[in-house]
Amino acid sequence: MDDEAQVLALNASFYDAFEALDHDAMAACWSRRPSDTCVHPGWAPLHGWSSIRQSWRTIFANTAYMRVRPVDVSVRLDDDLAVLTCVEELYSVAESVTVQGAVACTHVFERVDGRWRLVLHHGSPIAASQHTPSLDPTGVN
Amino acid sequence: MDDEAQVLALNASFYDAFEALDHDAMAACWSRRPSDTCVHPGWAPLHGWSSIRQSWRTIFANTAYMRVRPVDVSVRLDDDLAVLTCVEELYSVAESVTVQGAVACTHVFERVDGRWRLVLHHGSPIAASQHTPSLDPTGVN
Repeated sequence: MDDEAQVLALNASFYDAFEALDHDAMAACWSRRPSDTCVHPGWAPLHGWSSIRQSWRTIFANTAYMRVRPVDVSVRLDDDLAVLTCVEELYSVAESVTVQGAVACTHVFERVDGRWRLVLHHGSPIAASQHTPSLDPTGVN
Repeated sequence: MDDEAQVLALNASFYDAFEALDHDAMAACWSRRPSDTCVHPGWAPLHGWSSIRQSWRTIFANTAYMRVRPVDVSVRLDDDLAVLTCVEELYSVAESVTVQGAVACTHVFERVDGRWRLVLHHGSPIAASQHTPSLDPTGVN
């Protein structure tokens, strides 16, 4: 696979892990270094894998059901750094509260020891008037 | 100046332009290409300089007073790509509505024809409980 295909595959792995609420698979996407950065919708930036790991544990522990699909994906590649933007269409159930919406996402990937790894995730809520998700919440389609 | 200093200077220029509501100075920060991407808080991603330019015109036209200061700035550099994260502390007045708050920001800069240019801006609101701004709204300090 060329670099762009590897980055797109890693991006897909991130959303597979997110949808499966699979902490080990999520951890495998990241570089897991002190320089990692993560911004969840509405949160202040988290710096360092230790804080980021805990945030995903908390999110996964408080989510009963998750469907998420990246759309409008575009990638910009440099030698060892790749910037990807997309829109996350998501449908989640957490403690009986159901959320369907869209999140604007920036991912930065870095080639570390020959393998692409996630080093930055930035997600921000998109107002309902700005994007109409086409996601099927059942996962059938 | 080394690359990191140039990137930090360009980041400072971005906030100077934002605070001054100066469209030409804002435009000068960007690469102004179809691949540019901009996510304003609550907005869907905008792609291409044409859409991004219009968004800043709209924001500046609807803002009477703006104070903004980047804090917690960190930079990651590759050959021709730089990723910067910070928190924007801001105070703005728009049509008699005053907003004081914090925005999590990711910037991506690319070296284009030997000069660093902004190619991605992603801002997302931070919940008031997550960050306490220390910005002085008067601009005296």
